[in-house]
Amino acid sequence: MLSLDKIKDCANILKDITRATDMIEAPALSSKNKIYLKTENLQRTGSFKIRGAYCKISKLTDEEKSKGVIACSAGNHAQGVALAAEHEGISSIICLPDIAPISKIEATKKYGANIVRVNGVYDDAYNRALEIQQQTGRTFIHPFDDIEIIAGQGTVGLEIFEQLPEIDAVVVPIGGGGLISGIAYTLKNLKPGIKVYGVQASGAPSMYNSIKNKEISELSSVSTIADGIAVKKPGIFTYDICTKYVDDIFIVSDDEISTAILTLIEKQKIISEGAGAVAIAAVLFDKIPLKNKNVVCLVSGGNIDVTILSRVINRGLLKAGRTANLKIALTDRPGQLRDVSRIIANLNANVISIYHNRADENMPIDDCFLDLVLETRDHKHIEIIKKELILEGFEIVNS
Amino acid sequence: MLSLDKIKDCANILKDITRATDMIEAPALSSKNKIYLKTENLQRTGSFKIRGAYCKISKLTDEEKSKGVIACSAGNHAQGVALAAEHEGISSIICLPDIAPISKIEATKKYGANIVRVNGVYDDAYNRALEIQQQTGRTFIHPFDDIEIIAGQGTVGLEIFEQLPEIDAVVVPIGGGGLISGIAYTLKNLKPGIKVYGVQASGAPSMYNSIKNKEISELSSVSTIADGIAVKKPGIFTYDICTKYVDDIFIVSDDEISTAILTLIEKQKIISEGAGAVAIAAVLFDKIPLKNKNVVCLVSGGNIDVTILSRVINRGLLKAGRTANLKIALTDRPGQLRDVSRIIANLNANVISIYHNRADENMPIDDCFLDLVLETRDHKHIEIIKKELILEGFEIVNS
Repeated sequence: MLSLDKIKDCANILKDITRATDMIEAPALSSKNKIYLKTENLQRTGSFKIRGAYCKISKLTDEEKSKGVIACSAGNHAQGVALAAEHEGISSIICLPDIAPISKIEATKKYGANIVRVNGVYDDAYNRALEIQQQTGRTFIHPFDDIEIIAGQGTVGLEIFEQLPEIDAVVVPIGGGGLISGIAYTLKNLKPGIKVYGVQASGAPSMYNSIKNKEISELSSVSTIADGIAVKKPGIFTYDICTKYVDDIFIVSDDEISTAILTLIEKQKIISEGAGAVAIAAVLFDKIPLKNKNVVCLVSGGNIDVTILSRVINRGLLKAGRTANLKIALTDRPGQLRDVSRIIANLNANVISIYHNRADENMPIDDCFLDLVLETRDHKHIEIIKKELILEGFEIVNS
Repeated sequence: MLSLDKIKDCANILKDITRATDMIEAPALSSKNKIYLKTENLQRTGSFKIRGAYCKISKLTDEEKSKGVIACSAGNHAQGVALAAEHEGISSIICLPDIAPISKIEATKKYGANIVRVNGVYDDAYNRALEIQQQTGRTFIHPFDDIEIIAGQGTVGLEIFEQLPEIDAVVVPIGGGGLISGIAYTLKNLKPGIKVYGVQASGAPSMYNSIKNKEISELSSVSTIADGIAVKKPGIFTYDICTKYVDDIFIVSDDEISTAILTLIEKQKIISEGAGAVAIAAVLFDKIPLKNKNVVCLVSGGNIDVTILSRVINRGLLKAGRTANLKIALTDRPGQLRDVSRIIANLNANVISIYHNRADENMPIDDCFLDLVLETRDHKHIEIIKKELILEGFEIVNS
């Protein structure tokens, strides 16, 4: 049974294990409400998951500990379980789908876990973990649907209330629902007036659908940049708690999540993974029905693969007009490239790449295309460059 | 005169203005010492500069305040002065060289400063600021060589000592020397045994040279990714304080700084600008002559232009083998591209871009080059791909 006492007990267990992560005021993110970030991306292992995992594992019996634990995860839960097990001196096996990014596998290994890479996707790894569990008698550590796990995540709620007693609302990412269940239970019991909002990715709205349908509903597939909350089906406990304590759930798109990640980098100097940024996306794109309130957003994790981060940034630069792709039609005679280069240089844009393409079938035989990637200041700057090119007689093929 | 009391007085003045930024343990950065990060990149305005600027401005007389202030900076000092002036309700002018990134200009404007963009580089902007100062009677706010400014930055030292009384050493970026002067004075007076180390970029070693030469020395030019500490000449006050209180100064290269920025992203989930990452670079590349000590690294600021951040990340990916550039020689007949694509797909590498180049003068007339950019797992993965391509008869031109 979940209770405030159980959650306070968890906080005590975690005292020397987890950090009471910073609460950072973020006025640049909204003028409508006073936004605070609870920075669980700066938690040990890069996410809140260590809280629940350690609480669960520390409470196992000696016999259970001697047999070890097993979990299935390609992400934050894996690192949480691995570090928790290492702290307790017990053996851990983590089953990972072999498509998991090398960076997450390496991080999990580093915390001392035994890695089993399973051919296929998450479901295959999950089935393999259950098989091993049955063969070995290890305790399976569920990523969210377990009262001990939920109580552990609830310690985030205790910290929030201690750091900001004047809180009016909290906005929390939902995957399986473990984090929001713990936080909602804690805050509603401490101060029932606090609003608790959940956020899901539009590519994985399993809790959103379940609550709308008034029964646990499973998605046939999930697809989102927020891989940490790409869960097909809520848990039994978490669905029940969310039904009781969560005021509303909002949906954000991958584009909104990407913008949130980039905004956190530029304005707050912190790295969030996709799942960690959905609450910020909900604030930035004005989904929260509040005004002039103290709103705490959970930045739940920061374990984003750098390759994906690089793509998010590059896409963000393009959208902000800080990079421009131009395709210019040239008649294929000497001097044209020189003229284009001169115009661009005079307008202080920086050439990142250039490609002179003579073989496009849509062009007359003596014409060609010039593909340019430019570093620009903003959309206005791009417009000025285009206008000047057109003025000097060039034809811009795309925008 | 600098004194501990003056610095404590500054801490009092800053109580409701600045954040007592978090001190984060960072075991992933070194196994040799226990590393802690003092995260001034998470300070308001994205750097420690607000501390000194606000202390200085708050102490101006009413007459001085009525005339306003002026400063010259393309970066953190500008934002610090602008926000401090806004808080005090006084007018500020910031002179910026017009090469300053648009993001920094916008941030400074947002804090309410009047921006004067000056044709040329920093020195030109500085001269213009002095001109305006003389014409208007505004108070010039020096970025570092001012006792009030140094005392303000010294509050970082007070916080560090409060957060980690068992500190053995602190590692601090040096540009003009304001931050390290304040911190060194504070910590050495609180506990003389604390080691204070400075770090400069190899492209701007002005304090390093000055202390080695035993006199203030000016560099003819500076060039580094750490633009926030690209200072040609230390201050008179700061040189004097560093001579007395700083134990040693280390030099790090731009490549080392880039690695530090990427490491802070991946391991600590925080964004540092180049200047902010030099202390971490010194730790990562083993410049600190200590073992098993509690070492605090100043992450002094996070205001990095996203375009530069993107380049740092892309370069880091390349160095880590997470991106590969391959140039393959093909004989120009059908099926070759198909074969290359098949090999790459089978080995689970992801094609980012491809360029089929038929016009290279180094090739026989019926041959051509294929330029590939691949997303790979690591250097070993790249080697496997290359070996397989060679096995199947392809010639790899570069590495």
